[in-house]
Amino acid sequence: MRKIYVVGIGAGDPDHLTLQAAKAIGRTNVFFLLDKGEAKASLVELRERLIKHYGHPHKRIVEGRDPDRDRTPADYTGTVADWRHRRSLVLEELITEHLGDAEIGSILVWGDPSLYDSTIAILEEILERGAVDFEFEVVPGISSVSALAAKHRVGLNRVGQPFQITTGRRLAEGWPEGVDDVVVMLDAQHAFTKHPEADIYWGAYVSTPDELLACGPVAEVADEIVATRTEARERHGWIMDTYLLRRNR
Amino acid sequence: MRKIYVVGIGAGDPDHLTLQAAKAIGRTNVFFLLDKGEAKASLVELRERLIKHYGHPHKRIVEGRDPDRDRTPADYTGTVADWRHRRSLVLEELITEHLGDAEIGSILVWGDPSLYDSTIAILEEILERGAVDFEFEVVPGISSVSALAAKHRVGLNRVGQPFQITTGRRLAEGWPEGVDDVVVMLDAQHAFTKHPEADIYWGAYVSTPDELLACGPVAEVADEIVATRTEARERHGWIMDTYLLRRNR
Ligand SMILES: C[S@@+](CC[C@H](N)C(=O)[O-])C[C@H]1O[C@@H](n2cnc3c(N)ncnc32)[C@H](O)[C@@H]1O
Ligand SMILES: C[S@@+](CC[C@H](N)C(=O)[O-])C[C@H]1O[C@@H](n2cnc3c(N)ncnc32)[C@H](O)[C@@H]1O
Repeated sequence: MRKIYVVGIGAGDPDHLTLQAAKAIGRTNVFFLLDKGEAKASLVELRERLIKHYGHPHKRIVEGRDPDRDRTPADYTGTVADWRHRRSLVLEELITEHLGDAEIGSILVWGDPSLYDSTIAILEEILERGAVDFEFEVVPGISSVSALAAKHRVGLNRVGQPFQITTGRRLAEGWPEGVDDVVVMLDAQHAFTKHPEADIYWGAYVSTPDELLACGPVAEVADEIVATRTEARERHGWIMDTYLLRRNR
Repeated sequence: MRKIYVVGIGAGDPDHLTLQAAKAIGRTNVFFLLDKGEAKASLVELRERLIKHYGHPHKRIVEGRDPDRDRTPADYTGTVADWRHRRSLVLEELITEHLGDAEIGSILVWGDPSLYDSTIAILEEILERGAVDFEFEVVPGISSVSALAAKHRVGLNRVGQPFQITTGRRLAEGWPEGVDDVVVMLDAQHAFTKHPEADIYWGAYVSTPDELLACGPVAEVADEIVATRTEARERHGWIMDTYLLRRNR
């Protein structure tokens, strides 16, 4: 039976790799890469470095063209579903063409595969279509959220309290109900600036050589973060940042 | 300057260890162990195994008696704060007595140190008292939440949606506002049984040899999970389980 690993590789530091992930990479016959279209050179570089370092000498690497995606759609969920669908067609073709019987394939996923990543859903969609068959296994990874908390040396929750993980798009609609601690990912709109009463623990390119960190009351540090973020995004051509907002009742 | 690493070691599988954590363990002069009083033999075993395997030949291991803790207090937050305080006194004494100038100490933490763990807060409390000085650094780890999601091959969030991480105690007060996906930790009271309309992805001793998994509509699988959980807790003398609840609007 063919097998595919969905391998979490951590949030930027090559040493985030777990032994389980290194072993999965070492057993892999074929690596599937889907995002050469993206400008995020350092993401691609990390993946290549790990494959080179931990991969089998006879491994193969196959690349598919990631379908284009509207980054500011009106219908967010519908657009993502459509993009996933097109991505699943590209990946299905790669699997059919390149993964032999009883071979092992791997898809290396940034951070942890369970957090705002579509790889698992795409594999499920391919299996549901029923044209190609394989087993798959998920290898957990260090998420950008764990990496951020570690760098700020802060807990995500307070004693016995809940916290929420959400997106910048959602935070822009208002502070979430029922929690005083919120982790925000995928924020392209500086949604934290609307919450001057909270403390922020912010990080961009966390655990990479380009890491930027800032923390303090939003009222005091928001301008600095917006300026740093805008400058960094221009310089790199892209940015990944995450933050924890913590308010006192 | 003395240095202390707070090292996330993952949720049970020795191969959850990251290269960063293995390197930190290898550089450590003194390991501080604080929970010999607990019955959780396999937790203690994993720690010992990692120290033996990745530790320096001349490392030392020092053990403190973990202060007793009321597990079902009326004032939960106050009781935890008091327990943390007493724990900080025990650890402070160990550091003062056993960590030499320019030496490196480590505390190995289950899962990820940012998730429902008190080690960071305890070190901050010791530093605030000002009687002993050291630097400290947090090494992120695979959390039980990532491990659970990987085993069920499921994402924690749905496309563009938020999710909450909370405790059994909080879930027992009702379904949290503003989210349809909830990860529950530290549940001693089977709080999921009150939500028959949701789907559950449950796991106990996840990624250890004793792992138990179950999933399905709560209405259908709750009885089975309660029975399995009760039996396992009796057999082992303790249990650690976590679950994702997912409801459709
Ligand atoms: C599509 S999500 C993928 C998350 C990933 N699966 C994880 O576990 O971190 C991308 C978002 O993750 C966050 N992110 C990923 N890597 C990051 C890093 N090194 N520093 C800061 N944020 C990061 C950013 O919020 C970014 O918008
Ligand atoms: C004090 S918290 C520590 C959490 C830890 N820092 C982490 O990142 O997983 C203990 C709770 O974590 C969860 N947990 C830890 N390890 C687990 C495992 N291997 N399987 C299932 N749940 C686990 C359980 O909900 C348990 O009650």
